Amino acid sequence: MKSSELVKRRAGPMIARVAVVGTGVIGRSWIQVFAAAGCETRVYDSQPERADWALEWMAEDLKLDCAERQITAKEADARQARVKLCRHLGEAVAKVGYVQESGPENMAIKKALYAELDRAAPADAVLASSTSGLDMTEISDGLPGGGRCIVAHPVNPPHVIPVVEVLPGKRTEPEVVSRTVAFLNSVGKKPVLLNFYVNGFLLNRMQAALVREAINLAESGVADVSAIDTVIRDGLGLRWALMGPFGVANNNADGGVREYFTRFRESYIRHWKELDQTPSMNTELIERLGQATDQMMNGVSRAETRHWRDRMVRKICALKQSDPGHER
Amino acid sequence: MKSSELVKRRAGPMIARVAVVGTGVIGRSWIQVFAAAGCETRVYDSQPERADWALEWMAEDLKLDCAERQITAKEADARQARVKLCRHLGEAVAKVGYVQESGPENMAIKKALYAELDRAAPADAVLASSTSGLDMTEISDGLPGGGRCIVAHPVNPPHVIPVVEVLPGKRTEPEVVSRTVAFLNSVGKKPVLLNFYVNGFLLNRMQAALVREAINLAESGVADVSAIDTVIRDGLGLRWALMGPFGVANNNADGGVREYFTRFRESYIRHWKELDQTPSMNTELIERLGQATDQMMNGVSRAETRHWRDRMVRKICALKQSDPGHER
Repeated sequence: MKSSELVKRRAGPMIARVAVVGTGVIGRSWIQVFAAAGCETRVYDSQPERADWALEWMAEDLKLDCAERQITAKEADARQARVKLCRHLGEAVAKVGYVQESGPENMAIKKALYAELDRAAPADAVLASSTSGLDMTEISDGLPGGGRCIVAHPVNPPHVIPVVEVLPGKRTEPEVVSRTVAFLNSVGKKPVLLNFYVNGFLLNRMQAALVREAINLAESGVADVSAIDTVIRDGLGLRWALMGPFGVANNNADGGVREYFTRFRESYIRHWKELDQTPSMNTELIERLGQATDQMMNGVSRAETRHWRDRMVRKICALKQSDPGHER
Repeated sequence: MKSSELVKRRAGPMIARVAVVGTGVIGRSWIQVFAAAGCETRVYDSQPERADWALEWMAEDLKLDCAERQITAKEADARQARVKLCRHLGEAVAKVGYVQESGPENMAIKKALYAELDRAAPADAVLASSTSGLDMTEISDGLPGGGRCIVAHPVNPPHVIPVVEVLPGKRTEPEVVSRTVAFLNSVGKKPVLLNFYVNGFLLNRMQAALVREAINLAESGVADVSAIDTVIRDGLGLRWALMGPFGVANNNADGGVREYFTRFRESYIRHWKELDQTPSMNTELIERLGQATDQMMNGVSRAETRHWRDRMVRKICALKQSDPGHER
């Protein structure tokens, strides 16, 4: 992290009041991002019981953080006090400077929701969507406030993983792009800017490429699910937590990335020719992968594993912040 | 790590004397693995100056480790004292129980080398290759000792990254497979067993899938090299340092891996259809990627970045060892 960003973070969030609209796995995690950063955070879900559940989950998660001394009880209380549950969308977005929408991934629902948000939110509020695949140009088509609509797609879970993909629609104003990037920086996120829309953005395209090959390998029987996961977890993933594919390539040959890609060009092209098989993804295959994954999890619950993941990601990020390598 | 493995490691390496044949980027790193684990390590390279350089690199690397208090000076001396440079292959492999070969990735060279190793090494020594792509069935074809030949392919750099892909050839004896796995465990590695040969094994196939999409994204101009690397480094890679793709899928939906792959099936299939473009990899593209990577590295040298990577990977591994999640 650059020191200018650190200064910004110490100064508190750039926008004091925000709304989280939609409280599924992603939305509920955004609540924690904003509350931890010091924002007054309004929360709305069209299914009220889901919003209730999100706040219960947050309370439970913070309780575990306290038990593990990641934060103090006082800090946990302060974060919860910043969250206000709202039963009406208009109430949630009144007087906010930023809306993080995490509703269903369905174009018709999104379009209707953005029409409503555009009517209800202050004219200068940013309307940011967590969508992982829809195009903001289409979502905001015809809206008077199309210029303040943008995609801010996080990595699950947003309250521990820094990256957010920021993708303007064709009508998004440049000032809204820079305000979104600056605000996300100020709440401790690492925004990454995309120049134009592609299906899946950067993150899900790269993930899909790896997941396809992982499923193909498991389906072919060359190795089991646990072996494939180990190759990532105790192999490639340890490098990728520190460097992306270009950084890795640059360090895998004494002459750097040019030597690496020149030397292994033929070998990559040979691999690439074999990678284009698309798994069937039928119910039987999914059940087979499910059983193998259950076995790998050693009976440890999902809730426990998720909290372990969150704790560990925070520790890895702290390590990187104290010893940032080429990001210094 | 399972406690049984910890016990094994405390008891020292299962094989006391080993040889490292070939001392490029991978071979020189293997020297450090074996010396750190307590093995008497014989070193040979057909280019003597390369072996000299490998030992100089090791001395330099250990000096840095000492300066950073990762190890004591006494420990560094002890490791270096375990390494013996040999000017003849026969001298290097005499009386060893395990040979780690890391020669050039060329079938004719490998075949000639294995014929020589099979003649010179004790009959009960394992002959393990670091090859990332060649098939041991073909390398050892016709050799009297074909049954003791096996692939043990590490992740760069082996002295910090745990995973080793273990792949028997068709003639490899089952006892040699289990001896190799047990020995690698005893020197602190995490061996992963493949059931049959596929080009690129698990690791390079999954890496190639991700690298291809990373290059396609950079080439298309949707984002720059630094943004793409950030999405991995501060996004997907943080999860992958803890869980492989199946573990991640299992935690990305409240209902687990079955729900995840069922819910996102269509979305994955849509992505997969778009992933099959193979980058040109011409000199111009490689140079463009090179320039962007140089810029991203902020003028930090490769030597410094590599040592940072090694220090950080060790710290992440130590975090995971102290708090192993579902691997407990």
